[in-house]
Amino acid sequence: MITANARAVFSSEDSFKLTTIERRDLKPHDVLIEIKYAGICHSDIHTARGDWGPVNYPLVPGHEIAGIVTQVGSEVTKYAVGDRVGVGCMVDSCGECDPCHKGEEQYCLNGNTGTYAAIDRYGQYTQGGYSTHIVVTEDFVVRIPDGMELDVAAPLLCAGITTYSPLRHWGAAPGKKVAVVGLGGLGHMAVKLAHAMGAEVTVLSQTLKKKEDGLKLGADHYYATSDSETFTKLAGSFDLIINTVSAKIDINAYLSLLALDGTLVNVGAPAEPLPVQVFSLIPHRRSFAGSMIGGIRETQEMLDYCAENQIAPEIEVISAKQIDEAWERVLASDVRYRFVIDISTMGNE
Amino acid sequence: MITANARAVFSSEDSFKLTTIERRDLKPHDVLIEIKYAGICHSDIHTARGDWGPVNYPLVPGHEIAGIVTQVGSEVTKYAVGDRVGVGCMVDSCGECDPCHKGEEQYCLNGNTGTYAAIDRYGQYTQGGYSTHIVVTEDFVVRIPDGMELDVAAPLLCAGITTYSPLRHWGAAPGKKVAVVGLGGLGHMAVKLAHAMGAEVTVLSQTLKKKEDGLKLGADHYYATSDSETFTKLAGSFDLIINTVSAKIDINAYLSLLALDGTLVNVGAPAEPLPVQVFSLIPHRRSFAGSMIGGIRETQEMLDYCAENQIAPEIEVISAKQIDEAWERVLASDVRYRFVIDISTMGNE
Repeated sequence: MITANARAVFSSEDSFKLTTIERRDLKPHDVLIEIKYAGICHSDIHTARGDWGPVNYPLVPGHEIAGIVTQVGSEVTKYAVGDRVGVGCMVDSCGECDPCHKGEEQYCLNGNTGTYAAIDRYGQYTQGGYSTHIVVTEDFVVRIPDGMELDVAAPLLCAGITTYSPLRHWGAAPGKKVAVVGLGGLGHMAVKLAHAMGAEVTVLSQTLKKKEDGLKLGADHYYATSDSETFTKLAGSFDLIINTVSAKIDINAYLSLLALDGTLVNVGAPAEPLPVQVFSLIPHRRSFAGSMIGGIRETQEMLDYCAENQIAPEIEVISAKQIDEAWERVLASDVRYRFVIDISTMGNE
Repeated sequence: MITANARAVFSSEDSFKLTTIERRDLKPHDVLIEIKYAGICHSDIHTARGDWGPVNYPLVPGHEIAGIVTQVGSEVTKYAVGDRVGVGCMVDSCGECDPCHKGEEQYCLNGNTGTYAAIDRYGQYTQGGYSTHIVVTEDFVVRIPDGMELDVAAPLLCAGITTYSPLRHWGAAPGKKVAVVGLGGLGHMAVKLAHAMGAEVTVLSQTLKKKEDGLKLGADHYYATSDSETFTKLAGSFDLIINTVSAKIDINAYLSLLALDGTLVNVGAPAEPLPVQVFSLIPHRRSFAGSMIGGIRETQEMLDYCAENQIAPEIEVISAKQIDEAWERVLASDVRYRFVIDISTMGNE
């Protein structure tokens, strides 16, 4: 067993404690990664606080992981010691079902193995990236391109791929009008990526508070959804709407903004159902869809795309002892736009 | 003005009365059609009874119209006297918006003109096919292929195109698994068409009452949705589900039947909203969509496809004085599978 330092919560109401966790000894296809940076995702908070169902404690969150390979299993072919690598929201899948064969492991019919709060194929409870080391099978590791810093790479592994994948799947490109609902960690990546893909990008945010930011990030237009005129003015406008807001919204109002054959894609999920009026869908052959992260191949493609197009998340690097404070700020939407933990500070009191 | 005999209701609770209505004198691009057959669609009942909002009376329903051209306007180029033609759910659109330019007039941004219960560009209230004659601009008339009887052609103009269009749009084809929810007027056409397109077809009906019919129509499988095991057994199975049921259904149960990238398309709309759990969509990148009839070009394509593939609706021809009784039987789902009015009986007492 390999011992790693980690920050864990021991109950749904706990603050973070420094602790140690065990990582499995390397199997033939495993790599050991020394984690350098880990992003903080809103899902970390939901999961740790039991919002999405009961979880085991202690829990070490973190699924935006960037680091260096320090050891490889006997049959590893893809990575070598010293390689700069990343791990995202999943660390395994069955490898045998149709989605896995298609490289869409996130949709594995037997359930992909989450990077934390899941049971892996060895019967062990997975623990995430708020820790100094992690052991992952090479097929679920991606390469961080040369020239991309590890701290900015980390948030791409969830916020980046979660927005990149639906933008690609639903064809964001020149001539297309894309709206992004919510300008948080995911939203700001959606704006940067959609802009880079050549789409005309509109941010739909509750207020105009972050308008200046939004335009700087690449948005062409910025509207406040608290202003009901926004919905009149933009009716039937968009080919694609990426909804990054997990709270319950008036889904029919947003569907009314779609043009013919437009799709509204939720990448977050509110706990309550959204009441969809079918008459919001029928008159313009609109679709309401969901999308979840992306496959490993597509995650690599996204990293390479970001490196090539010099796309990086806006980050605020924090020390490990600031995680509790950072979580509160995430909950208060007081982050522009992603916290990244400097794992070298893990042992600091 | 041209006087036509017609059957109309004079209030939302009325039974049909024989009456006369006026059709406009032919404009340069108009054709006068002597109606031979008119199908009875469930929407006729909803509209006439005010279920979808207030309407003007007297109201002559009917948007599945087949007949013969008996007069043409001075500039008509597409049709000549004697031609066998059809008219579906719309008789006009703006012709200038993006959907109109794309030949998707049903999604006209200025609203297409319904065949009945609409106001046309001349400010006149449109009246439908339960009548002896209709005047329609040539661009909204389709040609009934040689060898296709007029009585079976009529239901194709709504039930046919409403199912053909989403089957084509979402790619029903060999290797695809298509489910059809509800085996009524639309459902039975969806089964025949999806089967002809080479898809593996499953009927999902409340009971197994019509199973024998369903298999005869071309279904490969037939399941009762009243049996909860159906939903367990078929979870994640279908590439496309065509929901022809306008009543409120447990939409999340049906969404759970979609495979990766599958789409559930509603072609009917319940008045109440359907509460969609976003977690029904996200894990398999599923879509919930709506579709409305089809454009004129696609309607012609559908008629030609049906002629070529010898696809015809199952119909029961009735006389005009049987309309009230037929409506009651439609409401009781006691029709296999479409009533068609023989318009030559219009004047009969």
